[in-house]
Amino acid sequence: MTYCVGIEVDEGLIFAADTRTSASFDDVRVYRKMHIFEFPGDRVFVIMSAGNLATTQLTLSRLKRDLEDPDAPRSLRSFSHLYEVAEYIGEVLVSSQARVSDEAQQSGVSVQSTLILGGQIAGERPGLYLVYPLGNCIATSPETPYLQIGESKYGKPILDRIIRASTSLEDAARCALVSLDSTIRSNLSVGMPIDMALIKAGDLRITQKMRLEADTPLYAEIHDTWSRKLEAAVHSLPSFPWEQGRSTEPVVASAGPRVPPRRTAPRLDPGDVQGQQ
Amino acid sequence: MTYCVGIEVDEGLIFAADTRTSASFDDVRVYRKMHIFEFPGDRVFVIMSAGNLATTQLTLSRLKRDLEDPDAPRSLRSFSHLYEVAEYIGEVLVSSQARVSDEAQQSGVSVQSTLILGGQIAGERPGLYLVYPLGNCIATSPETPYLQIGESKYGKPILDRIIRASTSLEDAARCALVSLDSTIRSNLSVGMPIDMALIKAGDLRITQKMRLEADTPLYAEIHDTWSRKLEAAVHSLPSFPWEQGRSTEPVVASAGPRVPPRRTAPRLDPGDVQGQQ
Repeated sequence: MTYCVGIEVDEGLIFAADTRTSASFDDVRVYRKMHIFEFPGDRVFVIMSAGNLATTQLTLSRLKRDLEDPDAPRSLRSFSHLYEVAEYIGEVLVSSQARVSDEAQQSGVSVQSTLILGGQIAGERPGLYLVYPLGNCIATSPETPYLQIGESKYGKPILDRIIRASTSLEDAARCALVSLDSTIRSNLSVGMPIDMALIKAGDLRITQKMRLEADTPLYAEIHDTWSRKLEAAVHSLPSFPWEQGRSTEPVVASAGPRVPPRRTAPRLDPGDVQGQQ
Repeated sequence: MTYCVGIEVDEGLIFAADTRTSASFDDVRVYRKMHIFEFPGDRVFVIMSAGNLATTQLTLSRLKRDLEDPDAPRSLRSFSHLYEVAEYIGEVLVSSQARVSDEAQQSGVSVQSTLILGGQIAGERPGLYLVYPLGNCIATSPETPYLQIGESKYGKPILDRIIRASTSLEDAARCALVSLDSTIRSNLSVGMPIDMALIKAGDLRITQKMRLEADTPLYAEIHDTWSRKLEAAVHSLPSFPWEQGRSTEPVVASAGPRVPPRRTAPRLDPGDVQGQQ
């Protein structure tokens, strides 16, 4: 599995992706799912992938081959509009799937991939597209300013609640990291490290990019402090009618001593005598 | 679909359930999924259900019949241990599924249901069980203090980050409401109103129960303010290396004027010219 998210705000684009691929629980590898095509001053693209790894790699190889071949009729450099690039990538994706699907269909393996394309071409605003396995695509909209591929449910509520067009590029990036962290915590098939890239509107290049490991200080601090911040937020919600005289002041969250370990066993666990399904 | 969550903390148990059942997008109804069996001073049980509604109703009818029949060999009142009650309910569930499965299997409809049972019997600590369609069950554990049934992914991260044995009963209840609210926001098949019940350890009765509609002041305020609280929390996360001199002071979240509407269209939407998958 995989989790990638692309966000479009007024200030630009944010991309974040995990790096775990797994064919099964005992066939787990680290692969980059975020791919950058940068032509500073002219255009910049980021492509993120979920699904069949062989299909993704074939698609990317063909995109690179077209770029390097001066006689290629089309390439990432030959279009004037981002939606044309999305259509072109969709066609390459479909043909990459078709190449292996005959044998694969017999084995029951899905060869489909889903992609997120974002970037900017000089003269246009930045844009963000989700390219489906059928080759068709959808863009972000004012009401739907982000796109996800892979294991998207765990990380969706935080995006729904926070991301607006006016959100700053860096706050949107922090939100993307929390969304990734929640997903990694809840689903074994999504794993560290995290790749992140920011494109500021008009920069026509990758403005910032980073790979965050679990012990990268920024990520470690987000991972360690987010629970305390949420706890303070929950505590400051309204009181129930029977809670007379309760203080809704947030508990101290951003400073003070570390919270103790999550939980120590307070009693015998009745579950141990039951079968686990 | 459905979303129900049961939480066990040192102070007691929390139950929260939505009330939407849907056979399809145009066959949507409101049904109670939280069922209370209360024998004050002796024992108290809450049962929540997800899955086939007919199976659930049959199971509950049989539990009630056994309670009312003085000659019934077993009933919710006849056991001394909560895990025996869970096993009994599992057996009733399996037999309720079996009654309809022959015809149903031909139509492709699943007759399975999954239940959460929680409560307390005098002389025992409170306990919480998830009863599977096969009739077997698992309990909460010190490391896993909550159980979910139905559409569980959207509401899981907030529980993972906040619920510990030491969490107060009311904070755990606020957390459950946020978990429900996130799920309702993200999935059409989970809907208002919300039923909630609290059992304080040792009370041997329902300590508090309430039905929350969208316009119940407590719920409306949680729904309206939670995004702002999260936004403040995200903003107060650590700065990226390139954000020199940025203030990580939380933006004002719990007071001040309302946040403006989520988003107004800042530009033409390129997605409108694309096909929607």
